[in-house]
Amino acid sequence: MNGAESLVRSLLASDVEVCFTNPGTSEMHFVAALDHVPGMRSVLALFEGVATGAADGYWRMARKPASTLLHLGPGLANGLANLHNAKKAGSGVVNIVGEHASSHIALDAPLTSDIEGIARPVSHWVRSSSSAADVGFDAARAVRAACTAPGQVASLILPGDTAWTMGGVVADRLTPPAPPRPGDALVEQAAQALAGPDSLLLLGGGAMDAQGLEMAGRIAAKTGCALMAEWASARAERGAGRVALPKVPYPIDLALEALAPYRRIVLLGARAPIGFFAYPGKPARLTRPDAEILELATAGADLPATLDALVQATGAGGTAAPLAKASLPDLPPLGPLTPDSIAPLIARAIPEGAVVVDESVTTGRAFGPATTGAAPHSWLNNCGGSIGYGLPVSIGAAIARPDRKVLALISDGSGMYTVQALWTLAREGLDVTIVIFANRSYNILRGELTNVGVQNPGPRAIDMLSLDRPTLGWVDMARGMGVEASRVEDTAAFALALEAGLAAQGPVLIEAVM
Amino acid sequence: MNGAESLVRSLLASDVEVCFTNPGTSEMHFVAALDHVPGMRSVLALFEGVATGAADGYWRMARKPASTLLHLGPGLANGLANLHNAKKAGSGVVNIVGEHASSHIALDAPLTSDIEGIARPVSHWVRSSSSAADVGFDAARAVRAACTAPGQVASLILPGDTAWTMGGVVADRLTPPAPPRPGDALVEQAAQALAGPDSLLLLGGGAMDAQGLEMAGRIAAKTGCALMAEWASARAERGAGRVALPKVPYPIDLALEALAPYRRIVLLGARAPIGFFAYPGKPARLTRPDAEILELATAGADLPATLDALVQATGAGGTAAPLAKASLPDLPPLGPLTPDSIAPLIARAIPEGAVVVDESVTTGRAFGPATTGAAPHSWLNNCGGSIGYGLPVSIGAAIARPDRKVLALISDGSGMYTVQALWTLAREGLDVTIVIFANRSYNILRGELTNVGVQNPGPRAIDMLSLDRPTLGWVDMARGMGVEASRVEDTAAFALALEAGLAAQGPVLIEAVM
Repeated sequence: MNGAESLVRSLLASDVEVCFTNPGTSEMHFVAALDHVPGMRSVLALFEGVATGAADGYWRMARKPASTLLHLGPGLANGLANLHNAKKAGSGVVNIVGEHASSHIALDAPLTSDIEGIARPVSHWVRSSSSAADVGFDAARAVRAACTAPGQVASLILPGDTAWTMGGVVADRLTPPAPPRPGDALVEQAAQALAGPDSLLLLGGGAMDAQGLEMAGRIAAKTGCALMAEWASARAERGAGRVALPKVPYPIDLALEALAPYRRIVLLGARAPIGFFAYPGKPARLTRPDAEILELATAGADLPATLDALVQATGAGGTAAPLAKASLPDLPPLGPLTPDSIAPLIARAIPEGAVVVDESVTTGRAFGPATTGAAPHSWLNNCGGSIGYGLPVSIGAAIARPDRKVLALISDGSGMYTVQALWTLAREGLDVTIVIFANRSYNILRGELTNVGVQNPGPRAIDMLSLDRPTLGWVDMARGMGVEASRVEDTAAFALALEAGLAAQGPVLIEAVM
Repeated sequence: MNGAESLVRSLLASDVEVCFTNPGTSEMHFVAALDHVPGMRSVLALFEGVATGAADGYWRMARKPASTLLHLGPGLANGLANLHNAKKAGSGVVNIVGEHASSHIALDAPLTSDIEGIARPVSHWVRSSSSAADVGFDAARAVRAACTAPGQVASLILPGDTAWTMGGVVADRLTPPAPPRPGDALVEQAAQALAGPDSLLLLGGGAMDAQGLEMAGRIAAKTGCALMAEWASARAERGAGRVALPKVPYPIDLALEALAPYRRIVLLGARAPIGFFAYPGKPARLTRPDAEILELATAGADLPATLDALVQATGAGGTAAPLAKASLPDLPPLGPLTPDSIAPLIARAIPEGAVVVDESVTTGRAFGPATTGAAPHSWLNNCGGSIGYGLPVSIGAAIARPDRKVLALISDGSGMYTVQALWTLAREGLDVTIVIFANRSYNILRGELTNVGVQNPGPRAIDMLSLDRPTLGWVDMARGMGVEASRVEDTAAFALALEAGLAAQGPVLIEAVM
């Protein structure tokens, strides 16, 4: 078999079953191998940022990596921003990047670039195969790297001749390294620190699953400590029957206020809270200056085992965790769509088992509290801050979990970044209900202008934050890419459209004009 | 003044008058400075690949750089592919990339990344300013780097505190280094080589302007050598009254055939012809093995002076260049739209002085010969091979030359890569007529599957090259972004739509269904 076929067979042997792709000439042998070898689902994206974001979403819901297949350096470059987001979320992704044949690279053809250089800033692992015989084993190593806790970005660069030359060898799956767990002394120290309402257990990463939260809830009930989640979680299990956690707010003043009570903070899968940006005259570290911060376990540690050990050390084994009760907010009055009138409608509509992909930015700041008692669901945040993550992540989530409804909450500015995702949603018939919050501005930046100390911004500055000239017609754009769509302007119409969208099979887009 | 204001004033002092941007929090002070300082035109893009491609197009038509303003590493990453294209085209671009405040970088916030690492693969020049006092001079140096022949990509990274801190200093324009010119001996050697029909003068870069072509035409007329252009030109002056050049074909077998006659090849602003890709069993160098190749001048040399010297050395000063006569192809028969029926309609419609931005890929292979005798025009190609260059480059070209009509010839697969450009075209009311060739496939890859030796591709492979499930509705998408649009399916309707589009002011899109 040639190297390309050994790639596909080795990926399958490592349990990689999905490939998000936009291929080119240098990847044609891989495309042919995807065709000849049964078992790999190939999903075409019209832009590589869609492919890499989809791989991120797939990992979050499948707990195993998908591959991407990207065309040379520029194809990888187009996927870079969502790989940045995946890296920050701790998502495992296996990028397969085609390269010119080895003999061709030195000639500096038009598409030649420094692919390793482009890959490195967003990858934990980068390798170029040197022969067809290496491709299978390199693929297995890439998957192992991607599966290294909490999940990593692995980029395997394959020169064309490694694909078309015979001599490919299928490699077996390689076991990723076991995640570390903290020693008993550190666990004991953490248990001591968690005593009373001025102590905080800050959770992140894999600690946000239902079992992890339940253990954290016992610890809090036993010790009296507070619980909080990081500003963003790659995936948090929420809703009725789960332990509800507030999260560190995005606006810096609210974050400082929320963290002010805590003198002792234990980090479990989370990092010490810092500002999203630096603001003149404000601290970068959001915790009080005298806070003692204990890093019990990083996101890459064995978080279930760490939580279990902490339950034992705090003597919380027999304590019940406080679980959120099923409770839906009241219907908002009939009227215009605002963040506050939308939040209860979202909460009431979330179907049981839904995957909520949240890129609602400023519109969504009230969604967290409103949905605490909603039907149980998974909530996915953007952890890397690069907009354009939501629609692609929805693709991956829907492919990973076809048994669950995906609800994508997308701000208009963010949605435009990877709007091509709509076509893939339609092509694959994915069960995703998309809400576009059409506030027609980069609303977050209006606040940030003030936060960073800009006084009296003028009309040309405001114009750079406005999306209203011309108005974006989301219904037209969605239809142009094969997605059924409607436009709503008040709470009643939104509630009806959301109910209908969630009841339908396949992708539906709702433009919510604010 | 603060560093941000010194940036804007220094860019203006260096004759940079346009900024293509999608800013974020870290760039808010620059946005405010753009507002407070008169003279800089700010153009908002909904995706950074649009901004960087627009800067490429601006350089090609203005012969001076625009700036971009990009949000941190991910914003730069989104613009990378079109910076790759700009780099390969020899276009000067000044990227301004915001960065976290210096004190914040070590904290590894969500948006923190290795910005220099992301910039380096596509940049000739990369620098991070270290204080507000440095920003102005660093900006002047960035412009000088961008203006270094033939044109370079310069990326200046500005931490937030360098923007908001007082102490900014406005820098004067710095003179770029004079481009080198070849010595007399080399010119004499080239003149000797150009004798008879088995010698070829291969032109590229700045040699493709009207004066350069005219000088090359004299040399050919005097010496009997052949003339040819590189596979792609950043900007070529063409049409009636200009010296017409065939170009090295893209398909490898045609390229080998076209170059087979030449035993002696002189490169003037061009590189030795190589295959776009490596193909198994085919040579990478497209010239005959015994060809003597003389590099007279690289793209970065003083090409007008080199051509002038070569005219003298060949004694062609008194020889007239053969100029293309005004000549339009016959109307095609009424019927379906095909590459062959479209080519004469394009040729007949090109207005005098038009800027043709060509990303027509397979559809456009017949356009070159058909348009040789069309009204005089500039023709812009993609020199880097990363698709999605055409719509953004049209923005920059139209802003650089509001006195000229822009005709953008875009394949559907390419257009989708940076489809967000339509919104900026509408917002700025740019005088661009866009033709989308809707063949509903990555048609070039169907040929490439065979070229790289894939036998009998199966349905799943073909599916990865098809854009017809669902059909892309370009009229809907264009209207959704504020661009007037129509859909045509035969030659008569296409001719009428093209005439109407070119007669209108502002952007018009024609979906040509093939």
